[in-house]
Amino acid sequence: MMLKDPSTKYRPFVAVDLPDRQWPSQRIETPPQWCSVDLRDGNQALIDPMDQERKQRFFDLLVKIGFKQIEVGFPSASQTDFDFVRSLIEEDKVPDDVTIQVLTQARPHLIERTFESLKGAKNAIVHVYNATDPVFRRVVFNVDKPQCIQIAVDATTQIRDLMKAAPETNWTFQYSPELFTTTEMDFAVEIVNAVRETFGASADNKMIVNLPATVECATPNNYADQIEWFCRNVEHRDHLIVSVHPHNDRGTGVAAAELTVMAGADRVEGTLFGNGERTGNVDIVTLAMNLYTQGVHPGLDFSNITPIMREVEHCNQLPVHPRHPYVGDLVFTAFSGSHQDAIKKGMALRKEDPDSVWAVPYLPIDPLDVGRSYEAVIRVNSQSGKGGVSYLLEQEHGIELPRRLSMEFSLVVQEVADRVGKEITSAMIYQTFVDEYLAKTEPYSLVSHRLSSEPDSPTVTLEACIAKDGERHTISGEGNGPLAAFVKALRSEGHDIEIIDYHEHSRGQGADAEAIAYVEVRVKGEAVFGVGTDESITSASIKGVMSAINRCLSTEEVAPNVTADSVA
Amino acid sequence: MMLKDPSTKYRPFVAVDLPDRQWPSQRIETPPQWCSVDLRDGNQALIDPMDQERKQRFFDLLVKIGFKQIEVGFPSASQTDFDFVRSLIEEDKVPDDVTIQVLTQARPHLIERTFESLKGAKNAIVHVYNATDPVFRRVVFNVDKPQCIQIAVDATTQIRDLMKAAPETNWTFQYSPELFTTTEMDFAVEIVNAVRETFGASADNKMIVNLPATVECATPNNYADQIEWFCRNVEHRDHLIVSVHPHNDRGTGVAAAELTVMAGADRVEGTLFGNGERTGNVDIVTLAMNLYTQGVHPGLDFSNITPIMREVEHCNQLPVHPRHPYVGDLVFTAFSGSHQDAIKKGMALRKEDPDSVWAVPYLPIDPLDVGRSYEAVIRVNSQSGKGGVSYLLEQEHGIELPRRLSMEFSLVVQEVADRVGKEITSAMIYQTFVDEYLAKTEPYSLVSHRLSSEPDSPTVTLEACIAKDGERHTISGEGNGPLAAFVKALRSEGHDIEIIDYHEHSRGQGADAEAIAYVEVRVKGEAVFGVGTDESITSASIKGVMSAINRCLSTEEVAPNVTADSVA
Repeated sequence: MMLKDPSTKYRPFVAVDLPDRQWPSQRIETPPQWCSVDLRDGNQALIDPMDQERKQRFFDLLVKIGFKQIEVGFPSASQTDFDFVRSLIEEDKVPDDVTIQVLTQARPHLIERTFESLKGAKNAIVHVYNATDPVFRRVVFNVDKPQCIQIAVDATTQIRDLMKAAPETNWTFQYSPELFTTTEMDFAVEIVNAVRETFGASADNKMIVNLPATVECATPNNYADQIEWFCRNVEHRDHLIVSVHPHNDRGTGVAAAELTVMAGADRVEGTLFGNGERTGNVDIVTLAMNLYTQGVHPGLDFSNITPIMREVEHCNQLPVHPRHPYVGDLVFTAFSGSHQDAIKKGMALRKEDPDSVWAVPYLPIDPLDVGRSYEAVIRVNSQSGKGGVSYLLEQEHGIELPRRLSMEFSLVVQEVADRVGKEITSAMIYQTFVDEYLAKTEPYSLVSHRLSSEPDSPTVTLEACIAKDGERHTISGEGNGPLAAFVKALRSEGHDIEIIDYHEHSRGQGADAEAIAYVEVRVKGEAVFGVGTDESITSASIKGVMSAINRCLSTEEVAPNVTADSVA
Repeated sequence: MMLKDPSTKYRPFVAVDLPDRQWPSQRIETPPQWCSVDLRDGNQALIDPMDQERKQRFFDLLVKIGFKQIEVGFPSASQTDFDFVRSLIEEDKVPDDVTIQVLTQARPHLIERTFESLKGAKNAIVHVYNATDPVFRRVVFNVDKPQCIQIAVDATTQIRDLMKAAPETNWTFQYSPELFTTTEMDFAVEIVNAVRETFGASADNKMIVNLPATVECATPNNYADQIEWFCRNVEHRDHLIVSVHPHNDRGTGVAAAELTVMAGADRVEGTLFGNGERTGNVDIVTLAMNLYTQGVHPGLDFSNITPIMREVEHCNQLPVHPRHPYVGDLVFTAFSGSHQDAIKKGMALRKEDPDSVWAVPYLPIDPLDVGRSYEAVIRVNSQSGKGGVSYLLEQEHGIELPRRLSMEFSLVVQEVADRVGKEITSAMIYQTFVDEYLAKTEPYSLVSHRLSSEPDSPTVTLEACIAKDGERHTISGEGNGPLAAFVKALRSEGHDIEIIDYHEHSRGQGADAEAIAYVEVRVKGEAVFGVGTDESITSASIKGVMSAINRCLSTEEVAPNVTADSVA
């Protein structure tokens, strides 16, 4: 089977003619109005739609996040939805500053029942739609354009009158020409003009015109062109709140929402994490956080994003993908060595100047801003290099490897990673470090030492009791410091060693504090690292030297046959 | 915790100044060159990177799909990658028309090792990068602009010379200024000019300039502006193949690829289903199928998309989301009644004219084109209406409900769906139909009947042996046909009934064929449906009438307290 030639079966989208479009030069500086349609468009696309309990939990979550407009159902079509709307109103579960929205088809008995469901609501949007797309007009409903307009006008008249008859509710009217994006643009404008006039919208009493991309059918710039064209050509633009409702059939729902807002849309309908029919509605979480990273507060609160994701997964019974922007389990991780290295440097710089503009490589947002930690950012697998390994040791174990040791040790870890074929946890790295450096006490180990110096003398004397294969004896040497003295003493043991490099720092705080010493020595012409820890800084460094000798005398040295450089 | 004010921590993206941009008026009429980076960028972002076996399987899959450029690894940084490249070459696993690509940093010993890995390759792209982004220059590498250019030029010189030294391979050179999108545009042009000149590219020997959005950091129109600006301002545009490499941090990677191709990019690097660092690389499957639905063959074969998805899930050990465009388990499903109804009508029309342009509502692509069936398109839950129920009965059981019966029965199903709170399978719908209509044989059932007519007489006589609560007796009547005669006979039993409507059709074929009759009768002023099946068309219709009477006499009638209309 081969993918067939699509040139006769599919037609390219017919673009609106707008060579002087202005939207590509715009930038979004204030958030649009957000309307969640999770409980309607999202719910109807679930394998197992939500019951009352899950619906209520989801509603409460949306309120907590800060949504002020929430489409709660299609009460004229579903008894479950009807009952849910009633319970929201009768049990007073809608805050005063939140408006519930319900959808209805443009049919008299459904509109009637819709208003029944809303009786006593404080704030409500009645959202009516009819199909204006030519395929729908012809194939599904068999109506011509005037009939199509008549359906919309009749519904608007009925809704307007039912609103007037129930002045206790603060009503908003919303109309959607369905499949706006595949409707002839001039016809979309014509039907909206007729509806607006019938309803009697004004600058003080705006109506919402929702222009849905019910099925995404072209690159997202086309939707933006259509919105700009519509806004320029519709009558009384200032009497309208122009709303978009993108879907994600081509994987560009988020872009479509952004470009249409740049093109003049005032309002976006979408869902959390993009649930909805087929490929889903546009994901409002991504839209909101995209604004946030450009310095614009979205007016929604995703500062603790992980519990929000878990709650939505529970209500929808659908997973959020591990690579989902801003929230997926893997989006704040870096496995690759060069990424890790760059992040590490960026983080260090940020520590010095925590109030600076965010500029950490590979992290478009500070994980802390969405309630994630830095802990999971660096993860190590066989593709990782020294950066990640060092970072994890430093972050979680207070071990700050000197650069050359970091390169040496990353080879040890990479060898482990290649062998196990899996991600290496921070605990495994630490254990490998302990095994490789700290636990090497054969053949030599330190039992005790004594350091003495004469007044006015530049040299110190070190006497060290050491065990070799369990047998204790004492060696001693002199030098300008304890390390030099110990090296001298070791030479008396027959070891031809010299110190190349030395780093030491404290680890932990207060009573638990200890010193950790990294010593690079040359033994028989070869450079090798040793590491020692002790409460005493002298003992730590002596142990470091012994660790190096022990490693050198060990036959199990790792052959560095791969480079320490890592992938981009 | 509340989302903090982001206005001081984050800065809006600085757009390139291009008021006369041309890309928004473009349309993609030919596919770009595709390069899969699954085995490199994708692989390095896996929790458990692929072993040789999984890598080989993935490579073979990519070849089968039709990729001609495949980035296979970072051999200078990973022994696993080095070994994999060697095995591809030494075991002759690369078709002659496929070019393998490897990544390397711009460092002499890594470039050296890269060429070692490629020894004997027939076609190879050497892809070198260095960081040009100002944050990287300052924070990570501490180089100024001239030093940054020098790194790129030195690497280019070395690569050019190594290529000349191995003329048995058909070489292509690729350079990436890393984090192109956050590099100063004039500097990006400057460094590419220097690299191009050093390499000595020409119109006959083009080099690839890859301009990555390593981290997605702005609305996708910005990337397109940058690509158009770059193409206008770089020297010798015709010596370059301009490539883009979008990531998906803001959820707009697909849009970014599409808009940059409109802006002049010749080539796209991405992965299958969008695996890759953090939020992933751009998804080439979606890009390809987006082209397909616009009548443009992408040059890649996804005609059997489900096994491809399963193979990728196996290799990556990561799931593809159920709402992933073109392939997710839920993207060809419609649960909502009005969607189902529209799809059903569109499908019926298509059946009449199978060569017409695809225009089935809510389905942007024919599921058959990607190897999916129509079977799963219609799925029924409590949010569904009559459309889906009828469709499933017709598709899977050959039962073509008349419209009013369809409305009546959908209420029965909806009641079941509300009760079970889950998706209703086609088997459950059929069983509900049998229980409600066909299995109602109390109090009346048909034992046998005899139909007779006199020559030249317009009337027929029907004698029917029926059982009432098990007791048999014979009734008879006359009429202009068997149904009318049977109604007459029933009136003699004391039933005041009349036929309102009647449909009958055959079901199944050949020896198994039977008739199914849908009869709407008025009993005691109320309209009620009955359904009968039999090999004989007469018996089927008589049984239909009896089914209606039995349902009417049953006390368990469903009260239609919700409407049959369903959600949009």
